[in-house]
Amino acid sequence: MSNSFGTLFRWTTFGESHGPGLGVVIEGCPAGITLDLNELQKQLNRRRPGQKDSVTGEVLVTSRDEADQLEILSGVFEGKTLGTPISCLVRNQNQRSQDYEKMAARPGHADDVWKNKFGHSDPRGGGRSSGRETLSRVIAGAMAQQLVQTVYPQIRLVGFVKSIYNMELNEQELKNLAEQRDSKQEYVDSFSARFPTRQHDVATLLAQAKEAGESYGGVVEVWIEGVPKGLGEPVFYKMKNVLASAMMSIGATSGFEIGDGFALAQQKGTDVHRHSDQEQYGGQRGGITTGEKMIFRTAFKPTSSILDIAKKGRHDPCIVPRAVPVVEAMTWAVLADMILLQKTNTIL
Amino acid sequence: MSNSFGTLFRWTTFGESHGPGLGVVIEGCPAGITLDLNELQKQLNRRRPGQKDSVTGEVLVTSRDEADQLEILSGVFEGKTLGTPISCLVRNQNQRSQDYEKMAARPGHADDVWKNKFGHSDPRGGGRSSGRETLSRVIAGAMAQQLVQTVYPQIRLVGFVKSIYNMELNEQELKNLAEQRDSKQEYVDSFSARFPTRQHDVATLLAQAKEAGESYGGVVEVWIEGVPKGLGEPVFYKMKNVLASAMMSIGATSGFEIGDGFALAQQKGTDVHRHSDQEQYGGQRGGITTGEKMIFRTAFKPTSSILDIAKKGRHDPCIVPRAVPVVEAMTWAVLADMILLQKTNTIL
Amino acid sequence: MSNSFGTLFRWTTFGESHGPGLGVVIEGCPAGITLDLNELQKQLNRRRPGQKDSVTGEVLVTSRDEADQLEILSGVFEGKTLGTPISCLVRNQNQRSQDYEKMAARPGHADDVWKNKFGHSDPRGGGRSSGRETLSRVIAGAMAQQLVQTVYPQIRLVGFVKSIYNMELNEQELKNLAEQRDSKQEYVDSFSARFPTRQHDVATLLAQAKEAGESYGGVVEVWIEGVPKGLGEPVFYKMKNVLASAMMSIGATSGFEIGDGFALAQQKGTDVHRHSDQEQYGGQRGGITTGEKMIFRTAFKPTSSILDIAKKGRHDPCIVPRAVPVVEAMTWAVLADMILLQKTNTIL
Amino acid sequence: MSNSFGTLFRWTTFGESHGPGLGVVIEGCPAGITLDLNELQKQLNRRRPGQKDSVTGEVLVTSRDEADQLEILSGVFEGKTLGTPISCLVRNQNQRSQDYEKMAARPGHADDVWKNKFGHSDPRGGGRSSGRETLSRVIAGAMAQQLVQTVYPQIRLVGFVKSIYNMELNEQELKNLAEQRDSKQEYVDSFSARFPTRQHDVATLLAQAKEAGESYGGVVEVWIEGVPKGLGEPVFYKMKNVLASAMMSIGATSGFEIGDGFALAQQKGTDVHRHSDQEQYGGQRGGITTGEKMIFRTAFKPTSSILDIAKKGRHDPCIVPRAVPVVEAMTWAVLADMILLQKTNTIL
Repeated sequence: MSNSFGTLFRWTTFGESHGPGLGVVIEGCPAGITLDLNELQKQLNRRRPGQKDSVTGEVLVTSRDEADQLEILSGVFEGKTLGTPISCLVRNQNQRSQDYEKMAARPGHADDVWKNKFGHSDPRGGGRSSGRETLSRVIAGAMAQQLVQTVYPQIRLVGFVKSIYNMELNEQELKNLAEQRDSKQEYVDSFSARFPTRQHDVATLLAQAKEAGESYGGVVEVWIEGVPKGLGEPVFYKMKNVLASAMMSIGATSGFEIGDGFALAQQKGTDVHRHSDQEQYGGQRGGITTGEKMIFRTAFKPTSSILDIAKKGRHDPCIVPRAVPVVEAMTWAVLADMILLQKTNTIL
Repeated sequence: MSNSFGTLFRWTTFGESHGPGLGVVIEGCPAGITLDLNELQKQLNRRRPGQKDSVTGEVLVTSRDEADQLEILSGVFEGKTLGTPISCLVRNQNQRSQDYEKMAARPGHADDVWKNKFGHSDPRGGGRSSGRETLSRVIAGAMAQQLVQTVYPQIRLVGFVKSIYNMELNEQELKNLAEQRDSKQEYVDSFSARFPTRQHDVATLLAQAKEAGESYGGVVEVWIEGVPKGLGEPVFYKMKNVLASAMMSIGATSGFEIGDGFALAQQKGTDVHRHSDQEQYGGQRGGITTGEKMIFRTAFKPTSSILDIAKKGRHDPCIVPRAVPVVEAMTWAVLADMILLQKTNTIL
Repeated sequence: MSNSFGTLFRWTTFGESHGPGLGVVIEGCPAGITLDLNELQKQLNRRRPGQKDSVTGEVLVTSRDEADQLEILSGVFEGKTLGTPISCLVRNQNQRSQDYEKMAARPGHADDVWKNKFGHSDPRGGGRSSGRETLSRVIAGAMAQQLVQTVYPQIRLVGFVKSIYNMELNEQELKNLAEQRDSKQEYVDSFSARFPTRQHDVATLLAQAKEAGESYGGVVEVWIEGVPKGLGEPVFYKMKNVLASAMMSIGATSGFEIGDGFALAQQKGTDVHRHSDQEQYGGQRGGITTGEKMIFRTAFKPTSSILDIAKKGRHDPCIVPRAVPVVEAMTWAVLADMILLQKTNTIL
Repeated sequence: MSNSFGTLFRWTTFGESHGPGLGVVIEGCPAGITLDLNELQKQLNRRRPGQKDSVTGEVLVTSRDEADQLEILSGVFEGKTLGTPISCLVRNQNQRSQDYEKMAARPGHADDVWKNKFGHSDPRGGGRSSGRETLSRVIAGAMAQQLVQTVYPQIRLVGFVKSIYNMELNEQELKNLAEQRDSKQEYVDSFSARFPTRQHDVATLLAQAKEAGESYGGVVEVWIEGVPKGLGEPVFYKMKNVLASAMMSIGATSGFEIGDGFALAQQKGTDVHRHSDQEQYGGQRGGITTGEKMIFRTAFKPTSSILDIAKKGRHDPCIVPRAVPVVEAMTWAVLADMILLQKTNTIL
């Protein structure tokens, strides 16, 4: 149902942002996968708010300071998966729902539509539509990553902020990222806004936005190298539409494109097909991976908790940097699902 | 599985483009819906190739001339749904797979990845990745439309070509469409390329493309008015991500955006939220409909059957006009599913 | 949904008994399986009514004489599965629904509850609750059998009538069947009522029942040898409960037991566990196969179309013999599903 | 997947018997249902082991003494359901897995087949195949009960032990139970073995079995009165086969029958259909409820932890009394699912 994602690597999330806790139950993870629990916690920490900027000293993102301590309740024994459901719990430490209760309905926010749907409005911080819900996604994605990299250690995945507001990576900056030899993810994370260049400019932009009660959207791009051919299922479970669904299920998203995306709609076929470089299709054709580098982008709108109405809440001038680990997590989860599905397409 | 779509209004498609036939089995359509069979056939005809252009006399789209005669095998009796599975069959009349067999693998086409997946390449015209597969979608969508309009007769839906190659509807042309009082769909269909303006320019562009073996992509936009509040399910079955999945599952798509989409990523929050007009979010917030006008767009890449390598096949300079009824059909199917799901969220 | 069965080997049935036709769409059958189409048709013929008894010359079962000609619409090319949905159609030849329309509601039959459910009563012979619906099951099961035996050729499955009314196979007769060296299925089929002994007595019983308008139930037993260890998924998709669901979904069933079944409830644990022969648990423990011989039974109630009220319909004194191929088909479908699922439990 | 049950009232269980805890995540429970948390805890307590017999002072069932304290982590606010996933956790207090580690594989137990399936044997007390797994079922069932009784307060459900070993309720004892005016469940619970008669005889039988290391199976019967007509979905989601699946998924079950079950297979049709009392079909026809009293039975085999090999574990001479609340819980869950499904069959 609507709180579950995936077909074979299938996970169900639960928890309200201001209730006792949040978590996820993962079904379908094969037995015998060695899990690095430190790595799981590290992924969780990557989406935590409250990191200070190394240049300005400003906290770039929301100042909620939950510990986000992961507890695994089942499915893992002595560091290995059992083949049974892996259930994970993170308790909420900071249930300041009263901050939110005093707020009027926030424009662009889900509170009022929630009321139309369920006949009540959850007074506890937006319920399931809070950004904190993404914590469950990051846990599932971190598990999926370890599964995927056990089977295909050569897969390399990185997400990064392609643009914030009117700042966008140029060709040279993209080339620079592509040429990083070591972990691209660590390189990106070394920039406080995960915009892998012009650190000072971005920090200044966000610090000013925080002061002014301004908010910005942006675009997250993902690259995946080393993906085997043949992943993705025909018709309704193609790689491209499942990724689109995964990304567009994240809060504040407003668009998805794969390869050259919307730009392809303005090109001549003869120009497109002349390229030897097939990255323009994002590493898939007909929804099935080709073994080429996968590329896709997700657009995020500016957050709605702008200063004048949200001053008693906690203001986040731009959620895009924190969305990067969420986007990556959803991608790992899709890959894990597709890899398991592909095992069932032939009998050999 | 991967050939099924929807949760409660759930349909499974079958059929290869050059096998005996194609069809769909629809589960979950409630009993007692009056079906207008002529309307179903009419929707099927809207995706048929071979229409001549009224200006140039050129056939704008692929010259395959199947009759596409719909046969309902079950689930309907005396014009009403029984509550049992509705199964539909359209036989292939024109199994010229040998045309395709002689072709080399077409760049950008799914044939070669298919081989990596299933250990064989279906010699019959791309198998399930042919455009003819969309026929099943149009049938299911036409059924969904009749279900939706039985429950909510006020819903008005129209899809149209927003752009082909470098031609794009301008503000005034969009306003003109918005002000059409009668059926917008009929108005759009009166233009051979479903680009509701500059008929002669578009026809000329496409006629020249056909001659030159050129192909173009484009963007399809959908407007839905009269949608009730509260449709869409939290977290992983939001209106926006299910629409994204539905659209990106169509062949040749490369991008999806809702409301102002990617443009929102470049705007200031204070500018966005200042508008009284909320169409910028596409009629949903947090993935749940707000009752406002819904707007979304789907990008299509240029087709890959360009002249020099495909001369023995049938050349389609632009599939975007024919994609409009497919996009509409997928939208109706999503609406039907969401309406049935919403019935289960409260007990009253 | 309710017309689909299975998780990975997943099939959806459609069709009313007196509409244009019935069929099934099978998803999840791996690519590259060689299908013997004659064998498929042969399995279909095994459930056909109208066979004459070799002893009495009486037609033992319902005299409907449909040809039941199978047409494969998709998913198979040159005798091999493509990995795409396999859709099959059997047209109804003999739509004498008027026979049934004249009948009052039949006691024990589903017609009147159908009306409570869907707001209409399908006048066409009980709609989806007719015995003819089992045709779709036999097709799916015959496909599943060919898949299973491609992977595990050593699996041997036989279903037979264990009892009709008060006639039951005794220990010696069971032993005799167990000792058949060649195909047990062919041996069983050589008895017109699939009760593999006392041919004349059973034929006489059924001939008298037909004349007197009497009807009888019975029990079908299934043996499966050569099943690999480890099939069946923990908790809610155990071999035992999926088999129970499969069998109890067949019309006219009233009970299911595995191994010694209800008799186990009356035994002492020390007696049960003392046996070296573990067939008492039916070849599974905790719902997972042990590699031992699997045994289970399904009870069928007497049919409800008794003479005095059904004389204008076609009377079937005992449907149990014709239920044998249906029970076998459901078993093959469960095995196919479990085999595919087991492929996803480990990554090696 | 295999740890989830239900279609619309869909719940996923997690937890090993000797890990940190067990629980369940329930999706699809409508918003606005008032939950009585004391009632939930009371249902949990009903399956707890360790109750002393009022006659003999003997502990009739396993002496594990977990507190089984239920914590609701999400989905409920101020005593009402939110429409979001309801997640529940019960921590294990008593992780004496070392008791079990010293044991050899127990005959009839799932430990060794588990190894064949997942490539490891969970040393922690049978993992997911322990009786403690039923705790998740009881939680889900207790939630389902409150949902069902909010919609249909007239539904009355009772489970009881029909037989243990060779002791079986006779006609008069069944009649006596049927004539109880007040809560039949409370009446049954007043008997330590939930065999609602001959308290002293049963207590003596079980006390002797415990001393002798003997174990017994038995049969649980369920009666449901006040069920509306029309519940259950055609073909593969009939009331009878979903109940069969629900019951046969419980550990130690070996058979299921509805109405007169296996006895019907030995009766003449003319005798069966002559009755005005339709309870012989168990309150359903064609798998759809008729509004009549529903009756079904589930057989349990003797437990396998017999004394000589299990003396370091904790011996349970008969799990059938403790199975009653589990059987009831699964029944409530099935009813909840069927009630929600029926809401989608018509549009009115």
